[in-house]
Amino acid sequence: MSEPIIFYDIPSINVGTWSPYTLRTRYSLNIKGVPYRTVWVEYPDIAALSKQIGAAPTGKSADGTPLYTLPAIYDPNTKTAVSDSGKIARYLDKTYPDTPKLIPAELDVLTAAFEDAFSAAIPRPDYAPIIIPGAFNILRPGSQPYFRQTREAALGAKLEDLAPPGSETRANLWAKVRKDAIKVNAWYEADGNKDKTFVLGAHAGVTYADVIVAAFFAWFKKSLGEDSQEWKVIAAWNGGRWGKLLDAFEKYGAVDAGEEVRLQV
Amino acid sequence: MSEPIIFYDIPSINVGTWSPYTLRTRYSLNIKGVPYRTVWVEYPDIAALSKQIGAAPTGKSADGTPLYTLPAIYDPNTKTAVSDSGKIARYLDKTYPDTPKLIPAELDVLTAAFEDAFSAAIPRPDYAPIIIPGAFNILRPGSQPYFRQTREAALGAKLEDLAPPGSETRANLWAKVRKDAIKVNAWYEADGNKDKTFVLGAHAGVTYADVIVAAFFAWFKKSLGEDSQEWKVIAAWNGGRWGKLLDAFEKYGAVDAGEEVRLQV
Repeated sequence: MSEPIIFYDIPSINVGTWSPYTLRTRYSLNIKGVPYRTVWVEYPDIAALSKQIGAAPTGKSADGTPLYTLPAIYDPNTKTAVSDSGKIARYLDKTYPDTPKLIPAELDVLTAAFEDAFSAAIPRPDYAPIIIPGAFNILRPGSQPYFRQTREAALGAKLEDLAPPGSETRANLWAKVRKDAIKVNAWYEADGNKDKTFVLGAHAGVTYADVIVAAFFAWFKKSLGEDSQEWKVIAAWNGGRWGKLLDAFEKYGAVDAGEEVRLQV
Repeated sequence: MSEPIIFYDIPSINVGTWSPYTLRTRYSLNIKGVPYRTVWVEYPDIAALSKQIGAAPTGKSADGTPLYTLPAIYDPNTKTAVSDSGKIARYLDKTYPDTPKLIPAELDVLTAAFEDAFSAAIPRPDYAPIIIPGAFNILRPGSQPYFRQTREAALGAKLEDLAPPGSETRANLWAKVRKDAIKVNAWYEADGNKDKTFVLGAHAGVTYADVIVAAFFAWFKKSLGEDSQEWKVIAAWNGGRWGKLLDAFEKYGAVDAGEEVRLQV
């Protein structure tokens, strides 16, 4: 490869990559050690940017129109745009076979199922009212109004009213997320061994399944604040599993020193 | 090992092992080639049998009391009773390490997640009204009244009224299950390769993840009848994936020639 891959990410005011989806790609690129540079894209620009680079929509909006989301990458070496973190991981594995595999071929089915299993085990309604308002607070002004409008429409209330700190609603949601995390933890301990940090165990490397879990909890950590009491409680759940996982992923969260561009579509 | 493992299974009138859970253990034992003999246990006897051999409950009944289910095994070589198909698979892998591994150590987390992912992807309310009445029809008289009473209480209607053949309800449920199967199929084809029969792919062996999927669809096949039009339609879904999987599993469904005992608790 001669030119760095362009990685389109969503900026924050001070915590680097924060989105649980773009963080999957940040981790993926850093794990593989593939040269890349980041282009930061504010929310209102994502659809136009995606169309401009030729990245496919990843779903449908509530009104039935195509939904464009980040992460997306553009690889100038192959003149290919790819959206969706899982598709990006598979593209990178295939296109750069001499770098560490995110999804070894024989684990492809299990990893695809793992992605769905994780989403089903910790369902969005359990955490969105807590985490989305936190995420709003770490966004730049270029994304905040768009984020507020779309999320309040989807969640049906003002962000500040969803689950205010100290409310019974918030306490009940945390109790649910705690139960959800116990379900995920049970996968790690199904064989009675509680010492696995990574999904493949102590003696195998990090894979995309770990990326999914780490990106999710890193989002919690960044949205709540790493010094917050709420994050400290989560980091200690399940024998400290989630805190330890993020410690192991610290190095993969590094934002490239390369050019950082605010896109103006 | 000197003595065969005792495998407690639920009998049918003419299709061998039919329960999607005991079938997992039948497949597991046959894949490993571990000597065993079957003891057939009718539904009303399951709880007493489980307590008698020392098999742990696998959940709670609606009234909060311990729920005992099959499969269970008793291994006279280690004097150990194990219930729950996943726990049995892990017990067999650990206790008989020289037989083919159902869950290679590095795949334990992914396999535990796969089990949850599969249950979440094809949820019980989508298929129970169709399949449960079919299952009733293949039970022996020793289990039918118990099965009818407990399932009608859980599903809230007479078995015959849940989704009668030809009804709009049945057609709508099939449409849901069809969508569910497409989700599971997407895991198999996430990397663009549509030719995998087994979860680990063409060049790796059968594992417990395959056992879960095969046991589920075999239950459909046996409850609907292998010559039924409904089963033929399912067998052809997703490029014939489910039909081909059951063909590959045919040999693992063999019922042991050993002693078959009707338990009298």
